Amino acid sequence: MDLAESLASLRSILHSFISSVDKLPITQQGCPLRIRTKHFFSAEFIIPKERDCTDLHATLIQLKPDSYEKLYCFLYQAPNYLEKIWDPFLLATEYIRMGVPNHDWKVEDSNSNFDMCDTYPPLIYVPTSTTKSMVIGSSKFRSRGRLPVLTYLHPNGASITRCSQPLSGFSARCLEDEQLLQCILKTNSQSNTMYIIDTRPRINAVANRAAGKGYENEGYYSNMQFKFCPIENIHTMRGSLQKLLDVCEMKNPSMNQYLNALDNSSWLQHIKAVIDAAIFITRAIEIEKKNVLIHCSDGWDRTAQCCSLSSLLLCPYYRSIHGFRMLIEKEWLSFGHKFSDRCGHIRTNDNKEQSPVFLQFIEAVWQLSQIYPTAFEFNERFLISLHDHSHSCQYGNFIGNCEKDRLDLGIKERTYSYWNYILQNVNDFKNPLFRPQSSYASEVLLPIIYPQTLKFWLNMYHRFNSGVLPKETIPNTLTHLVDHTIALSDHARLLEKRIRELRLTLENGITTATSNEDIHELQENHNIISFIEHDSGLSENELNQTTVESIQPKLTKFLQPLSSSSDVESGISSDYSPNNKLFTSSFTLQHQSSSEINDMPTLERISFELNSIALDWCSYHAPFHCSCSLPFDSAQRKYNCWRCGENFCMRCIEHGIRLPGLYSNNLVPVCKTCVRSIKLSPLFIDYTMSNKSNYRNQTEIKSSTLVIDQKQPMEFSINGISYQKEEVRGERSIRREQYCCDQYVDIALK
Amino acid sequence: MDLAESLASLRSILHSFISSVDKLPITQQGCPLRIRTKHFFSAEFIIPKERDCTDLHATLIQLKPDSYEKLYCFLYQAPNYLEKIWDPFLLATEYIRMGVPNHDWKVEDSNSNFDMCDTYPPLIYVPTSTTKSMVIGSSKFRSRGRLPVLTYLHPNGASITRCSQPLSGFSARCLEDEQLLQCILKTNSQSNTMYIIDTRPRINAVANRAAGKGYENEGYYSNMQFKFCPIENIHTMRGSLQKLLDVCEMKNPSMNQYLNALDNSSWLQHIKAVIDAAIFITRAIEIEKKNVLIHCSDGWDRTAQCCSLSSLLLCPYYRSIHGFRMLIEKEWLSFGHKFSDRCGHIRTNDNKEQSPVFLQFIEAVWQLSQIYPTAFEFNERFLISLHDHSHSCQYGNFIGNCEKDRLDLGIKERTYSYWNYILQNVNDFKNPLFRPQSSYASEVLLPIIYPQTLKFWLNMYHRFNSGVLPKETIPNTLTHLVDHTIALSDHARLLEKRIRELRLTLENGITTATSNEDIHELQENHNIISFIEHDSGLSENELNQTTVESIQPKLTKFLQPLSSSSDVESGISSDYSPNNKLFTSSFTLQHQSSSEINDMPTLERISFELNSIALDWCSYHAPFHCSCSLPFDSAQRKYNCWRCGENFCMRCIEHGIRLPGLYSNNLVPVCKTCVRSIKLSPLFIDYTMSNKSNYRNQTEIKSSTLVIDQKQPMEFSINGISYQKEEVRGERSIRREQYCCDQYVDIALK
Ligand SMILES: [Zn+2]
Ligand SMILES: [Zn+2]
Ligand SMILES: [Zn+2]
Ligand SMILES: [Zn+2]
Repeated sequence: MDLAESLASLRSILHSFISSVDKLPITQQGCPLRIRTKHFFSAEFIIPKERDCTDLHATLIQLKPDSYEKLYCFLYQAPNYLEKIWDPFLLATEYIRMGVPNHDWKVEDSNSNFDMCDTYPPLIYVPTSTTKSMVIGSSKFRSRGRLPVLTYLHPNGASITRCSQPLSGFSARCLEDEQLLQCILKTNSQSNTMYIIDTRPRINAVANRAAGKGYENEGYYSNMQFKFCPIENIHTMRGSLQKLLDVCEMKNPSMNQYLNALDNSSWLQHIKAVIDAAIFITRAIEIEKKNVLIHCSDGWDRTAQCCSLSSLLLCPYYRSIHGFRMLIEKEWLSFGHKFSDRCGHIRTNDNKEQSPVFLQFIEAVWQLSQIYPTAFEFNERFLISLHDHSHSCQYGNFIGNCEKDRLDLGIKERTYSYWNYILQNVNDFKNPLFRPQSSYASEVLLPIIYPQTLKFWLNMYHRFNSGVLPKETIPNTLTHLVDHTIALSDHARLLEKRIRELRLTLENGITTATSNEDIHELQENHNIISFIEHDSGLSENELNQTTVESIQPKLTKFLQPLSSSSDVESGISSDYSPNNKLFTSSFTLQHQSSSEINDMPTLERISFELNSIALDWCSYHAPFHCSCSLPFDSAQRKYNCWRCGENFCMRCIEHGIRLPGLYSNNLVPVCKTCVRSIKLSPLFIDYTMSNKSNYRNQTEIKSSTLVIDQKQPMEFSINGISYQKEEVRGERSIRREQYCCDQYVDIALK
Repeated sequence: MDLAESLASLRSILHSFISSVDKLPITQQGCPLRIRTKHFFSAEFIIPKERDCTDLHATLIQLKPDSYEKLYCFLYQAPNYLEKIWDPFLLATEYIRMGVPNHDWKVEDSNSNFDMCDTYPPLIYVPTSTTKSMVIGSSKFRSRGRLPVLTYLHPNGASITRCSQPLSGFSARCLEDEQLLQCILKTNSQSNTMYIIDTRPRINAVANRAAGKGYENEGYYSNMQFKFCPIENIHTMRGSLQKLLDVCEMKNPSMNQYLNALDNSSWLQHIKAVIDAAIFITRAIEIEKKNVLIHCSDGWDRTAQCCSLSSLLLCPYYRSIHGFRMLIEKEWLSFGHKFSDRCGHIRTNDNKEQSPVFLQFIEAVWQLSQIYPTAFEFNERFLISLHDHSHSCQYGNFIGNCEKDRLDLGIKERTYSYWNYILQNVNDFKNPLFRPQSSYASEVLLPIIYPQTLKFWLNMYHRFNSGVLPKETIPNTLTHLVDHTIALSDHARLLEKRIRELRLTLENGITTATSNEDIHELQENHNIISFIEHDSGLSENELNQTTVESIQPKLTKFLQPLSSSSDVESGISSDYSPNNKLFTSSFTLQHQSSSEINDMPTLERISFELNSIALDWCSYHAPFHCSCSLPFDSAQRKYNCWRCGENFCMRCIEHGIRLPGLYSNNLVPVCKTCVRSIKLSPLFIDYTMSNKSNYRNQTEIKSSTLVIDQKQPMEFSINGISYQKEEVRGERSIRREQYCCDQYVDIALK
């Protein structure tokens, strides 16, 4: 263990993260207790007395709620900046974005009371030519009533529809279902055939026939191309993840043992199977221009994976933060992925129902983001957060198994929304490499996945074992550099403006302007801000035309936003304003001036502007502690104060400040010391925020990080009771302020 | 194959890169010929007539020189900017840097004519207490006369010495050798014992005893701790690399097949063994404070790997570009790593002598650079270049098997030096993440290597298979961002200075300064550049003291370099000046003003300054072609013109331009169009370079990239003869300008 590792030690685990508590065979030192969590922490503790161990084991087991009503989301009190407001997700708006309803597709209301299919949304979309009887007939012929419905419409007219397996057995047929599929085929005039993709291995599909289910009989469905994309079932996936986690827990494996164990887990093979299926669908839609109908057994696990991943490849919108949210809402939440069953939210959920289906989707997205680092607006932290909060039960979004469950539980009235949390912290989740203008960010992605391409996701599965991770994270450095570049170009833009103004003042020959007041008065009287605006591409000949005569006609030009500053790079602009609506994907640098354009500032104010921006920023890598003494670790984002350039932790920085030295009006991060100092100035008055209510209330955030004494690393306590530690697999501090404390097991190393 | 892949197609291969040409079993289409290269390109061609195939095979085989005199380095004519000048490497200066000779260590001249050991350098370093007879006796007792000599002295006094195996057999002993080792032990008073590290597996060492060699008899050497670090021999390593390359050539392997084949190659296991040995040595020196003597069999393969890697971990200097050069010169070149034999430079070299020993070292360094991304000054491109040029024979550095060979061949008189090439292109080889001030860059590195930590080096082994690589390279984006940040802060620094000057001009109340000439004259007469210099950390109280009275005392302060601009981030400064001596490791931003400090510029000049710098840069990712139509690929560095902000290839950019809008005097990259335009200006005169002779002559660089027609990808020609293509594993364009054409096999896809 190196220093970084011994520094890392577990403090608190949210109850809902605990996935298993196991008593291991008694040793001479005592009774070992192993705790594993759903966010891949694992630790073994030696409890000297077996009786204590049994008690502790029972206590920890009992922590898991036995009913939905006891879930954390119903107790959680968020910091003030989060409100119990749910941005209403209307499935219809997402379909409208895709141009639906249209000539080919219509809304169908047969399920408006969840009567036809309780795991589908109230509104479904089917071909215009479909009749009510086809819909009802097909629904009866499909497992759990999950009939074929539209889920994605590509701009070229090809569509993705999804459903569950037919109750066909060996020979049963359903004319309405066959007709419905013909209607789907006919929505797309570009092809005479369409794909029916069964995402199961053929052998599984065949086995289902014996149970009266299975897959479509090819003889009854004309013009259909059948294709199996072999993705294994939830039980195989659960086993595979466990083997992968065993790889993570191996002690000092050789390279040989490691590669063998990784191979045996088949985890990456399963991830590849999911991505390969999505790529097949993407090619069918984009290149073959054919409709695709996707199902597995019940159509809520593998089907959700394939529909959402192929949509992500097909449509750049889903690669934005807002679009990705829509994708989750549509494919996973509204079409009934059983989050509570798959994640095991409550004690009564069947263990055999748990499976890392959503995790596999998240990892597949991460693997794609490694291949296309500029194509996704969100970063790795976002994906990890999304996975964790599908388990945390802190927000209501992922509770229950379908929309009906969440409606019955009153989730929207009684809990906070995860998306609101993301919105309020959106700068933490943005990918600094994202370029909306780049071709990978704006086009259909058609990768080929080689085994060499897929990586072991260290930051997900090894996040508590810092020894395995690189000593610095490059994306964090990137974020730092992007922010610094934005700060400097924004500042330089203002400086260039000021120089032009001052030049003009000089050219106009101000006489005896000896005091600031005089100059200020002069400006107000004569409004002398007209000057020659040179585009940066201007030739030298034009440069030499700096004559007083040419000033007046160019006045209007000056009053326009600077055309010389092209927006080529502006995709990297991150607006720190809480007013910036997360879900609008606006990436253009604001070209407002920080003061009224024709109000030339006083010289005093120019000084103030000059001193409000640090040209040099403290290196991202330099300090290991914030000035508040909180140690920095790679899980948390470090912020540079735009005024002094130093590094600060999230608690020591304010995000809602307008600095006078910037050309734009953007709200930027400034440390509390600088905020205090800048607010003292009488000149600051112009720059205060207009909208106080949106101001993130930093003082509400609790500081509850425990201090660890490194000298006695072998002792620890759980909920105040001391024990002896055997092995703890690293740890990184959790952002405690997100949680409320009674939901924690406190494990402190002493 | 996606577009990027089909774009990629082989054009030219330097003869010296061809590693094998194999006729494969005849098929119906014709006779397949496989070409593999030392930089990991592999292609199979179908030659319709067997006779042609035989001829071609013979021709290609004959291309390999049969004597040193025919090697490429003796023919190569470099572009004008490279001169046939060898920066003299004096081993002595590197020892002086380590503080040697000193009280404990002295220079020994017994080998000044290579009489004692022809594979050692003329000067060697041994303990002060050593006698001539000990040196000669020990040399006779060691394989190939390679006696224990000093190679690294740590600041704490612990040292690394290196040698070959003793000719001990089962019982032979040598008193002088035993005495020499006692002398080494006594140079370090901190420990009573020292390590003798045999980098072979014990079984190999034992087997050598039967041949009269082996390892030291523990009974004869007191106070020595013996340790085996099992690294396999050159034959195992050669086989392992071949298996790794077979993995790369697998067609559509499953994840399972891939992981199995990777495991079977044992390549990463061997890399881990080398790094683990180096870490053991590092801990012995740094933590146990013990001397370490390292040997394998002859002490020029595994010993070179372990000595150089542990030095790299121990000493931050070796992690700089200059230091890394010194490390190669010392551990690999001067101590006789057999580059010509291991790389197979000439036809007569025994194939059984070839082995990727140097490649393994390079890869081990790369793996460490992945764990510590901020600790190394050089980037991946540097490591790949170094590997490639150990094979290319283009520069004289790596020719022959020892210093004596190179002296006999007159390398320094007759060839160009690789280091000179690196010096002239140093900005291409700098790691944008490097922070000399960061702790990882300035301290001893003590990693723990987990199997999960080591990666398959895609950019080395799969460089010609772009489908496997990520679609964008993050380090390139980082370089882009770092450069942009430097440009902006440099520009902003000048703008702030100008604003202060203009302010003061206004405050001093210039009367009737209506023309530029008048203002300029005024400045010259009154020298009115004194003004109030505000540090960016200045409080608001101080700000308000802007009174004329306070100006004079502060004049001196203004004439100093700006103290307000701290150098915290200056490690990222890349000086584009060819004058910048590569090997001085100076990383501070120059704080010279771009014009005389007390020469206030005319308003016209201020305009010129403002228009000389682009605030927005074209995104690194945006264009796929340079304006000269050369396609960009990830192997080549893209440059942003600092004036217009557009992307250009290396040929379309000039590096030696001083832009008036920068505070510093740095030479920066500007595109040829902008250079032309800026040079037309009468105002440019101040900024021309002082030292014309150092100016890189870009016009000398030949443009010889062939144009590929994508429409008939199945035909190709070798040296003008057309054939049918079967499979070409991708390709990236080679920087042709580095080479001269008659050394190439031209393979053109038609
Ligand atoms: Zn600050
Ligand atoms: Zn802090
Ligand atoms: Zn340009
Ligand atoms: Zn070009």
